[in-house]
Amino acid sequence: MANTFGQLFRVTTFGESHGGGIGVVIDGCPPKIDISPADIQRELDRRRPGQSKITTQRKEEDRCEIVSGIFDGKTLGTPIAILVRNKDARAEDYVEIARKFRPSHADFSYEAKYGIRNWQGGGRASARETIARVAAGAVAKKILAILYSNFEIVGYVAQIHDIIAKINRSCVKMKDAEKNAVRCPDVAAAKRMESLIGQIRDEGDSVGGVIECVVRGIPAGLGEPVFDKLEADLAKAMLSLPATKGFEIGSGFAATHMRGSEHNDPFEMRGGKIRTATNNSGGVQGGISNGEEIYFRVAFKPTATIAHEQKTVNISREQTKLSARGRHDPCVLPRAVPIVEAMAALVLCDHALRQQAIGLPSALK
Amino acid sequence: MANTFGQLFRVTTFGESHGGGIGVVIDGCPPKIDISPADIQRELDRRRPGQSKITTQRKEEDRCEIVSGIFDGKTLGTPIAILVRNKDARAEDYVEIARKFRPSHADFSYEAKYGIRNWQGGGRASARETIARVAAGAVAKKILAILYSNFEIVGYVAQIHDIIAKINRSCVKMKDAEKNAVRCPDVAAAKRMESLIGQIRDEGDSVGGVIECVVRGIPAGLGEPVFDKLEADLAKAMLSLPATKGFEIGSGFAATHMRGSEHNDPFEMRGGKIRTATNNSGGVQGGISNGEEIYFRVAFKPTATIAHEQKTVNISREQTKLSARGRHDPCVLPRAVPIVEAMAALVLCDHALRQQAIGLPSALK
Amino acid sequence: MANTFGQLFRVTTFGESHGGGIGVVIDGCPPKIDISPADIQRELDRRRPGQSKITTQRKEEDRCEIVSGIFDGKTLGTPIAILVRNKDARAEDYVEIARKFRPSHADFSYEAKYGIRNWQGGGRASARETIARVAAGAVAKKILAILYSNFEIVGYVAQIHDIIAKINRSCVKMKDAEKNAVRCPDVAAAKRMESLIGQIRDEGDSVGGVIECVVRGIPAGLGEPVFDKLEADLAKAMLSLPATKGFEIGSGFAATHMRGSEHNDPFEMRGGKIRTATNNSGGVQGGISNGEEIYFRVAFKPTATIAHEQKTVNISREQTKLSARGRHDPCVLPRAVPIVEAMAALVLCDHALRQQAIGLPSALK
Amino acid sequence: MANTFGQLFRVTTFGESHGGGIGVVIDGCPPKIDISPADIQRELDRRRPGQSKITTQRKEEDRCEIVSGIFDGKTLGTPIAILVRNKDARAEDYVEIARKFRPSHADFSYEAKYGIRNWQGGGRASARETIARVAAGAVAKKILAILYSNFEIVGYVAQIHDIIAKINRSCVKMKDAEKNAVRCPDVAAAKRMESLIGQIRDEGDSVGGVIECVVRGIPAGLGEPVFDKLEADLAKAMLSLPATKGFEIGSGFAATHMRGSEHNDPFEMRGGKIRTATNNSGGVQGGISNGEEIYFRVAFKPTATIAHEQKTVNISREQTKLSARGRHDPCVLPRAVPIVEAMAALVLCDHALRQQAIGLPSALK
Repeated sequence: MANTFGQLFRVTTFGESHGGGIGVVIDGCPPKIDISPADIQRELDRRRPGQSKITTQRKEEDRCEIVSGIFDGKTLGTPIAILVRNKDARAEDYVEIARKFRPSHADFSYEAKYGIRNWQGGGRASARETIARVAAGAVAKKILAILYSNFEIVGYVAQIHDIIAKINRSCVKMKDAEKNAVRCPDVAAAKRMESLIGQIRDEGDSVGGVIECVVRGIPAGLGEPVFDKLEADLAKAMLSLPATKGFEIGSGFAATHMRGSEHNDPFEMRGGKIRTATNNSGGVQGGISNGEEIYFRVAFKPTATIAHEQKTVNISREQTKLSARGRHDPCVLPRAVPIVEAMAALVLCDHALRQQAIGLPSALK
Repeated sequence: MANTFGQLFRVTTFGESHGGGIGVVIDGCPPKIDISPADIQRELDRRRPGQSKITTQRKEEDRCEIVSGIFDGKTLGTPIAILVRNKDARAEDYVEIARKFRPSHADFSYEAKYGIRNWQGGGRASARETIARVAAGAVAKKILAILYSNFEIVGYVAQIHDIIAKINRSCVKMKDAEKNAVRCPDVAAAKRMESLIGQIRDEGDSVGGVIECVVRGIPAGLGEPVFDKLEADLAKAMLSLPATKGFEIGSGFAATHMRGSEHNDPFEMRGGKIRTATNNSGGVQGGISNGEEIYFRVAFKPTATIAHEQKTVNISREQTKLSARGRHDPCVLPRAVPIVEAMAALVLCDHALRQQAIGLPSALK
Repeated sequence: MANTFGQLFRVTTFGESHGGGIGVVIDGCPPKIDISPADIQRELDRRRPGQSKITTQRKEEDRCEIVSGIFDGKTLGTPIAILVRNKDARAEDYVEIARKFRPSHADFSYEAKYGIRNWQGGGRASARETIARVAAGAVAKKILAILYSNFEIVGYVAQIHDIIAKINRSCVKMKDAEKNAVRCPDVAAAKRMESLIGQIRDEGDSVGGVIECVVRGIPAGLGEPVFDKLEADLAKAMLSLPATKGFEIGSGFAATHMRGSEHNDPFEMRGGKIRTATNNSGGVQGGISNGEEIYFRVAFKPTATIAHEQKTVNISREQTKLSARGRHDPCVLPRAVPIVEAMAALVLCDHALRQQAIGLPSALK
Repeated sequence: MANTFGQLFRVTTFGESHGGGIGVVIDGCPPKIDISPADIQRELDRRRPGQSKITTQRKEEDRCEIVSGIFDGKTLGTPIAILVRNKDARAEDYVEIARKFRPSHADFSYEAKYGIRNWQGGGRASARETIARVAAGAVAKKILAILYSNFEIVGYVAQIHDIIAKINRSCVKMKDAEKNAVRCPDVAAAKRMESLIGQIRDEGDSVGGVIECVVRGIPAGLGEPVFDKLEADLAKAMLSLPATKGFEIGSGFAATHMRGSEHNDPFEMRGGKIRTATNNSGGVQGGISNGEEIYFRVAFKPTATIAHEQKTVNISREQTKLSARGRHDPCVLPRAVPIVEAMAALVLCDHALRQQAIGLPSALK
């Protein structure tokens, strides 16, 4: 349902940006997995505000508390609840938007849906909710690493506004992305991106871009034939993130300009295994992984919160104007990289457990 | 789960391309809706093979039988089962692929997942499975039309290979798309597309393209804040269709080249209602509809089945070659239009019922 | 949801007693299981009407068609659809109840819920719906037998009205129950039950009773700690059957008269395994199987359809009288035995797959 | 899934008896419902340990914190998270059971399932988990009271060991049950029960009994025809509670001794409404409420924790003996009354929202 994701590795998130905190309950986690608070904190720190000068300056340490489900450093098989308290909330920054709908924010549509909203900082629509996803993703990554020895997930910024990075997708490593504030492995592009974001921020405006994500080490056979195709679940996962407008897997929209004879990925024997010669499929065929690299791209719009004065309407249905206060990112992509990875890990971990479920004793195989 | 879609308006599909037939069970349909076999047949005829010279020549009438859930022409509130028998199945066309993996088809990944597959015509991976979705979509459309008096859903081909149609998205009607075999409302482009598809077919090759879909008449308030955002469920719905590689809503990937000050949709009062001046959001903000037109685009790859000889591998892990037999579409898009519409209707109908569920007596509102 | 049962081994049923037929879609069945129509027919024949002189004389062969999901006699891992057509439907028997609410039937409550009902033979509320459960249960039994070599499920009639059978629960076998028309392993009691049912039928009345079910060969570890306790899912399964009024597991209601020191099942080492000395727990502790025999009892009320004239109300809210026509069982229990077994098999098969899902490579165990 | 209950009003619980605390996330709660911490605390206080001399003396205030989902005293429509910290945990009381399996507890079956368990106080199997259910039930009760003006739910102890109370089910009110420590409305029986429990406690033993629950004011039409029958969901809810062994609705097991002509509930016009003359159905027919009182009974076994020395086995598979330390209730029923009510409220609230979901504009009705 609305706030739960996954069929077997099930993640339920809760919390608003201003209030008791943000949290997650993970149900269906296998027992006896080593999980420490540090495993989770490491990922939370990658999405934390204030980590560099191009992100929001809201001061949140985002320290996680593991409330349940772990005993002596190991998962119990029972629900893992993780809670992160809100600290640097400044409700007073938001008084104006209690009455005015911010353009391209969720204020109006929430009001239309519920007839009520927590206007302090966007409430449930705030990107702070993604803390919960990153925490759960950290657990999913650990399970995937146990299941698949070559498992690796690498997200990075591939484009900011009109600056497009040059990246060798098949070689890129997490450390390449993590070595600069933009999380772009193309060092030259990263430098220009960082300077563009700074300039845009100074102009009180915002920009978007593209995050690309590569997953290695997933065996053939994960996914489901019809509705829960691997790419369908990845698409949902990505479009469920704030500020996303598009998703493409493998050749994506570029496939529309190709012929079948160019686009098809011929099978061949390589290293004793059945492999494809090319990978336009993006590692998924018929909804099921084929053992090749899985890669996909996510489009993020420019941040809706800008310092420019904007025209809008208030709850009394009068025309008015609004200038953002509150602290925000001029470009969400650098901090969104770990969130994209987390969502991909949730999808893959869920499908890994689903695949285990249908297994039978080897006599049958 | 794998073969079920939706939370409240739940659709479970079954069947393989060669076997007893294709079917669907719709659970959660409200009672007392008028549904006739003709309502369903009309939509099935739009996706039927052999409907024009640019589609596959497999001869299937695709006549539907309503097995349960309808009494005296009205829904009972109990499960509606609809069955379409396979008639013109030619298993003999597929003997070769019992042993060879077709490039960019699901043969290999199914084998990896299940250790068994129905190799006759692709089995469960066949696009015949979408019959079930179109049948269910016909029911969903009827419900939406009852709930929302201005409801309208218009899918059309916006691009075939390099031919891009010019379409005024806000005016286009279903009859505009239905008047040619390509289902493209730009008549001039449609002519060129039709001729390109014919030529590609004669060359034994295939092409892809883009389907665009516009939904009108959805009120503000449908969707869910977090995982089940309206765009997330639409993205999943579309990427669950065979041959799709990408999805974008509203401004989509183009948003990545815009600034926030350009991209934001200012609110204004118009016709006594709160409206947005522009619609880069594509009718959804924060995962919830805002009352504007919902529109999105879906990328389809070129059909994997081509007449060209292709390199591949067989189940004994030997290099081999393969030429498609079997009948197929050189371009799936014209027949995919009603399928895209059907999936959009399933998503919207489900969210419409979900919104009803949280309603309370008006005293509370 | 309403017409779907199970989390991983998911069964969706459809159909009314008078209409196109009764069917089931099984999603989540592991691949490569041998299933023949005969496997399913064998179980359907145990619940078939007209099988003996103490059951309804409605003539239904209840022949099953496997529409999808099986190829060359083996499951494909994709949905298995099974359809049984209605043949000997006599809508004319039910014309009177189109307007009158039968006492203790679902006529009135369906009308209240949906504002419409298929009054021919009870529609969806008919016990014919259990055909679908028995068909799915036949598949579940096959899987359980593969997973657990000593798996055995034995249902039998333990009581009809005031006749209580004497049965040694730990020795009873399916053949003991199957050797008479009542399905009661106590031969002397069975004879008296059969004669009582005949007499009751001649008087135009009906009786109920208790079915007991024993499951052997389930290892320790199936079930879930909180909401999906094994006994909770069994209770739901049984109370979802028509005409059931109660459920008890292990010591059941008799436990309320015992002290903890009598009721507790001490652990002991037996045959090299950890066993319990007694089995008041009924094979489940804390919601999870402990490796002992699982046994439970289900109370069935007397059939609501009787030949006596009864007072009731019609849809115009007028007092009226009603005498049943239509064919019916004076006592549902003999035919309900395979249904109880089927539901138990569905619960256990689902939990077996769930337990597989959380498994990890042995290094972790 | 395992730790989530409900389809639309979805409750996910987490926490162990010794650890960070016990909590619940409620997803799907309608917006704009007034909920204060006091609403929840009132119910938690009814199940709190140490509330009288016949309950465990563990000192837990069980103060709840509402972490999310409520703003200015009203529900937001987003997840409501409620957390209760563990305070008076004494892990040292449980050192012995780290190695020994307590008879008729979940120690052994958890170990068999997960290969690990939190042995401090029973971990997830502890009845402290029901705190989460009671908190969620308090919210469900508020919604039901808004929806149905005559809604009332009354649970009470009907039997302790061999003492059976005399209660007029159709008149009993919550205050009648709440006026003594046993929660039995029959004052004379309550006195004997209280003295029996005291005596049993002094003997180091335990007793069980029966809780009966009556729900008034539910309109006809709630429930689902097949698997999610109202009685099926109630049965699951009750059997998911610790220490329960049986469930019966309406006439229950007593129905097995009746004839159809006695058991059927004739319809009649009464007060201008269609009513039943008797109520052996327990307010549910064909799985759907008929507008009469819903009533059911739940069997609780004697508490497994007793002071007597008991035979058991340790994790090294050696015979050993065990005497309980830890604090416990000699009889769980008095504190289980609010838990039974809470679970009933969760089931009914979920079905109330489900019924709203299928509603359509009145033109259709």
